[in-house]
Amino acid sequence: MIKTHERVDDLQLNGLKIIQNPNGFCFGIDAVLLSDFVKLKNRDIAVEFGTGTGVIPILLSGKTSFEKIYAYEVQHDVADMASRSVQMNDLEARIEIIEDNLINAEKRFSAQSVDAVFTNPPYMRMDSGIKNLEDQKAIARHEVLCNLEDIIRTAGYLLKDGGNLYMIHRPNRLVDIVALCRQYRIEPKEIRMIHPFAGKKPNIFLIRCTKYGRPDLKFLDPLIVYEKPGVYTEEIYRIYSMVNMTSFAAGNAKNEDL
Amino acid sequence: MIKTHERVDDLQLNGLKIIQNPNGFCFGIDAVLLSDFVKLKNRDIAVEFGTGTGVIPILLSGKTSFEKIYAYEVQHDVADMASRSVQMNDLEARIEIIEDNLINAEKRFSAQSVDAVFTNPPYMRMDSGIKNLEDQKAIARHEVLCNLEDIIRTAGYLLKDGGNLYMIHRPNRLVDIVALCRQYRIEPKEIRMIHPFAGKKPNIFLIRCTKYGRPDLKFLDPLIVYEKPGVYTEEIYRIYSMVNMTSFAAGNAKNEDL
Repeated sequence: MIKTHERVDDLQLNGLKIIQNPNGFCFGIDAVLLSDFVKLKNRDIAVEFGTGTGVIPILLSGKTSFEKIYAYEVQHDVADMASRSVQMNDLEARIEIIEDNLINAEKRFSAQSVDAVFTNPPYMRMDSGIKNLEDQKAIARHEVLCNLEDIIRTAGYLLKDGGNLYMIHRPNRLVDIVALCRQYRIEPKEIRMIHPFAGKKPNIFLIRCTKYGRPDLKFLDPLIVYEKPGVYTEEIYRIYSMVNMTSFAAGNAKNEDL
Repeated sequence: MIKTHERVDDLQLNGLKIIQNPNGFCFGIDAVLLSDFVKLKNRDIAVEFGTGTGVIPILLSGKTSFEKIYAYEVQHDVADMASRSVQMNDLEARIEIIEDNLINAEKRFSAQSVDAVFTNPPYMRMDSGIKNLEDQKAIARHEVLCNLEDIIRTAGYLLKDGGNLYMIHRPNRLVDIVALCRQYRIEPKEIRMIHPFAGKKPNIFLIRCTKYGRPDLKFLDPLIVYEKPGVYTEEIYRIYSMVNMTSFAAGNAKNEDL
């Protein structure tokens, strides 16, 4: 079940484990923060766009109820690794990894059939300094195979009236995100800015948008990551308490700023 | 030059003074923060929408160069008070108060003729709990006589290529603002969130948008107002150093949250 160069990390949550490839693709703090922000209920059907290692659905399975998460991953080797992590945790009934481009979700699902969509998408525009279009990390980080409009249009198609889109992204794309969400009738309702230090500018943010929601945006209290250099804040320790800190090793995560 | 119920406050900046009416309309912290955020140059022609007491152009006259500021104020008594403050400071050559609704600016100015537009507009939607449509404070606080789209459409008409719109507003309207700015080709470039306390959610924000700007939003370091209850932060003391603190008295300012 484990390939050469892969390793298994304990997520410190109900005995859940995850397969990662330290040379290719490991999950980062963004995924952990997004998994803490997503709210699911008992009978919810959710879709994730770009699951990577599968870490967000696996973490969610350990801390909340839901009916099923369908998690898209377009890269074959990454999707295969995520599928094996789902099997390893006996989660096949609750999580299905779909090896496909998320833009094909409109063919697989009916319109307005999904309670929640969540995504930790590529942060960078196609034009921003990309070197190798085949590279696993490049595809995870740059809008090579899908862009923000694909994501938001597809979420708008999938979500039920009142269903939520949860996303984590960089502040420099905030205008693109909220303008596209409004265009596709998923109204931005909550934003939480994430600051490396108190008093310093945010370098990432969480957003919740509601299909056909009424316009009225709430900014939540900011999330501060570090108390001082090398020391996380209490809130970050609380969020991480369930996740083995060593799983973040090696600087391979998508957001190298945190 | 001073009417009953009015008083004259010293702005503690180059001997500048301002007439205010403690029972009707006084400037607030929002105006001071916006005046610190607006950047003007030597030959700039600027237009303000809704000048109130005229405090922002008067403060700007004391700390920066510009050719001329045309400041719209639709309320007769308020515009008259602002005009008298301009006269009292011998600023008629640099500041002109225009008693009119800003939506008529398209008749008075040519398209793309202005270097900067700034505004501290009414914060609340027309439908949010308004009591008296004639009330001076209601007109300053609610979108009775103009709304966000009027403001942004008119700014888009006035601004030169590369000219800037500066605004202060509440976070719950951020989606409206950035979506409308993009619609009228004034791209949001910088946002500075203003938080009453570090770690608490922002209750107001500054935004700079550039006519025909390239999409790429920067969040600046947040501005924290209070170090602890009753004690301003160093930055607020720096910004206020030029303004007589007693001018804020009486809780008549537009933003009663700060």
